[in-house]
Amino acid sequence: MADDNPIRFGLIGCAEIARKLSRAINLAPNTTLSAISSRSIEKAQQFRSKNGLPETVTIYGSYDQVLDDPQIDAVYMPLPTSLHVKWAVLAAQKKKHLLLEKPTALDVGELDEILETCRSNGVQFMDGTMWYHHPRTAKMKELVSDSLLFGQIRSIHSTSTFAETPEFFEHNIRVKPDLDALGALGDTGWYCIGAILWAMNHRLPTTVVASPPAHRNSAGIILSCTASLHWDDVDPQAVATFHCSFLSHVSMDLALRGSNGSVHLEDFIIPYEESCAFFDFTSGAKFVDLHIGWNVKPERVEVSSTLPQEALMVQEFGRLVKGVRDCGRSPDEKWPEISRMTQLVLDAVNKSIDLGFVPISL
Amino acid sequence: MADDNPIRFGLIGCAEIARKLSRAINLAPNTTLSAISSRSIEKAQQFRSKNGLPETVTIYGSYDQVLDDPQIDAVYMPLPTSLHVKWAVLAAQKKKHLLLEKPTALDVGELDEILETCRSNGVQFMDGTMWYHHPRTAKMKELVSDSLLFGQIRSIHSTSTFAETPEFFEHNIRVKPDLDALGALGDTGWYCIGAILWAMNHRLPTTVVASPPAHRNSAGIILSCTASLHWDDVDPQAVATFHCSFLSHVSMDLALRGSNGSVHLEDFIIPYEESCAFFDFTSGAKFVDLHIGWNVKPERVEVSSTLPQEALMVQEFGRLVKGVRDCGRSPDEKWPEISRMTQLVLDAVNKSIDLGFVPISL
Repeated sequence: MADDNPIRFGLIGCAEIARKLSRAINLAPNTTLSAISSRSIEKAQQFRSKNGLPETVTIYGSYDQVLDDPQIDAVYMPLPTSLHVKWAVLAAQKKKHLLLEKPTALDVGELDEILETCRSNGVQFMDGTMWYHHPRTAKMKELVSDSLLFGQIRSIHSTSTFAETPEFFEHNIRVKPDLDALGALGDTGWYCIGAILWAMNHRLPTTVVASPPAHRNSAGIILSCTASLHWDDVDPQAVATFHCSFLSHVSMDLALRGSNGSVHLEDFIIPYEESCAFFDFTSGAKFVDLHIGWNVKPERVEVSSTLPQEALMVQEFGRLVKGVRDCGRSPDEKWPEISRMTQLVLDAVNKSIDLGFVPISL
Repeated sequence: MADDNPIRFGLIGCAEIARKLSRAINLAPNTTLSAISSRSIEKAQQFRSKNGLPETVTIYGSYDQVLDDPQIDAVYMPLPTSLHVKWAVLAAQKKKHLLLEKPTALDVGELDEILETCRSNGVQFMDGTMWYHHPRTAKMKELVSDSLLFGQIRSIHSTSTFAETPEFFEHNIRVKPDLDALGALGDTGWYCIGAILWAMNHRLPTTVVASPPAHRNSAGIILSCTASLHWDDVDPQAVATFHCSFLSHVSMDLALRGSNGSVHLEDFIIPYEESCAFFDFTSGAKFVDLHIGWNVKPERVEVSSTLPQEALMVQEFGRLVKGVRDCGRSPDEKWPEISRMTQLVLDAVNKSIDLGFVPISL
């Protein structure tokens, strides 16, 4: 199955998440990790040796060097969000296809600059949301698209929460205004918003409104928030709520309720196990006589996966990049548009909080 | 186990739900069904024969006759909400202990009139929320009270939805402004609000705010709505969201997330099965190295029940009534207070919707 002309990846930065992506790039059948960069050559070297990567992987002491390496087709960029616009634009200008960590930018204006540069330079853009690529996600979509089994979507609820350590709150980039100014909304809310949009077939909500409270640290970074979204143009109108937080035990809940069925899972972002994931599906539930029980229980739908979801993401990205590099195709526009919608809604939630929990029309 | 001096119940009305309660009254070891009333004697007679009740159960063609029957200790009242205040007050004045269907009243003003009459007449009040009495509920409370396993409460989400039939929307009392003016908020939202207050140990929220949309029928009755609640006096502040609807597939979700653990169940109002119920409990979850899975999966906690939850409710009510009737105790004040808080929050949600989704302080 080895690809004799794989997409050659360079890492822009050696964040913790880059370890997971390095593995994924090497697991995906159509990509290979060719270079690593950090702001110091020592860090890049350490990353290579600690992660058991071969010496054939080039190490660089600056991001520019990866972008100038003609052997590199694509970059994975797990930099702090505030650095995205600078380095993503530069990468696109240097014709490097771009797999960019989420949140994609500090706001949609910055993201548009990135996307426009990708477009004008003919490079593929994708953000690093992995769960979209798990076969479980496709299976859920198949079921919730069934007008008999699931019916029309009515409500969605999603959470993405983590209980962070005191050290995290002191030192992590995700609570620093100059690095990841979107805090928990950007880091964890991104997934909730993405899941809601995914469930709504990427139809933008009519209105977004945050609910009190929104916790902030002393520097003003959001540590926890809650919001609801609604759609006027669905009849009867659909509603979604989400909660994201750095202050709560791990949760990754996704509940989808339609007119005829429902889907529940509690690990939608990172499945409990790599090789097999599941969700609960209920359809046509009614109460038995006297309302003393249900006629059906949720069915556990299991979906196995030959590759981890992050490798499937890299594989999909690699496939699109190959289309551009080897077959003269235009970059795919679906993934950038999904990123943009997610960022747009995220901005609206942020604005709603900033203005005192007022509704924001989209 | 037969009680030789059980609490003798009369039914005020023969609504469908009265079938379930008749069974429960006869299953509970300390109560017995002694009389049935309807506005017509024929309906009462039909109810008795259709439900296989013995001829020793007296039938009455008016509610007053039950209230005037000196053999009757307590009444179960499943009347349309708009009739509660009249008949509940009358029942209390006639010294009948009162098990009142939810929603308890059209607003807290009416409920206060009922509660005050119960108090001044020394009769026990309880609303008909059954799930509080399931041993699963006590087991969940035990776990979420564990400061190590669950930690401090952070967020709560609850739903109560049913997909009703066209016939329901045309004829059911629950969508008629002169009968059940609170619609889905009263009928199904009552459970969500109750669950949230239960999870918060019956601490009133600081603020309640409904989120758009709220669907109404042509008569103005709420068919579906969503709201969030928050508590200023919990640090960090807790948040809850709920969604209730007559327009969505059956759902009865309850998710509780603390700093160290979480609880999930999808049948909190009516368990899938009578004899055994379960919920999922997760504690101390972390990601394994590389964030490619979890160190723990949810544990399924099973709780068996010797009696259906509605019979346990009746038994608890019977125990309290016996305390008053046989031991000269004062009526218990916990259950009326829980009903009152639920009604108070329900009123606030209703007001928030009426005023255009504005926050309501409590």
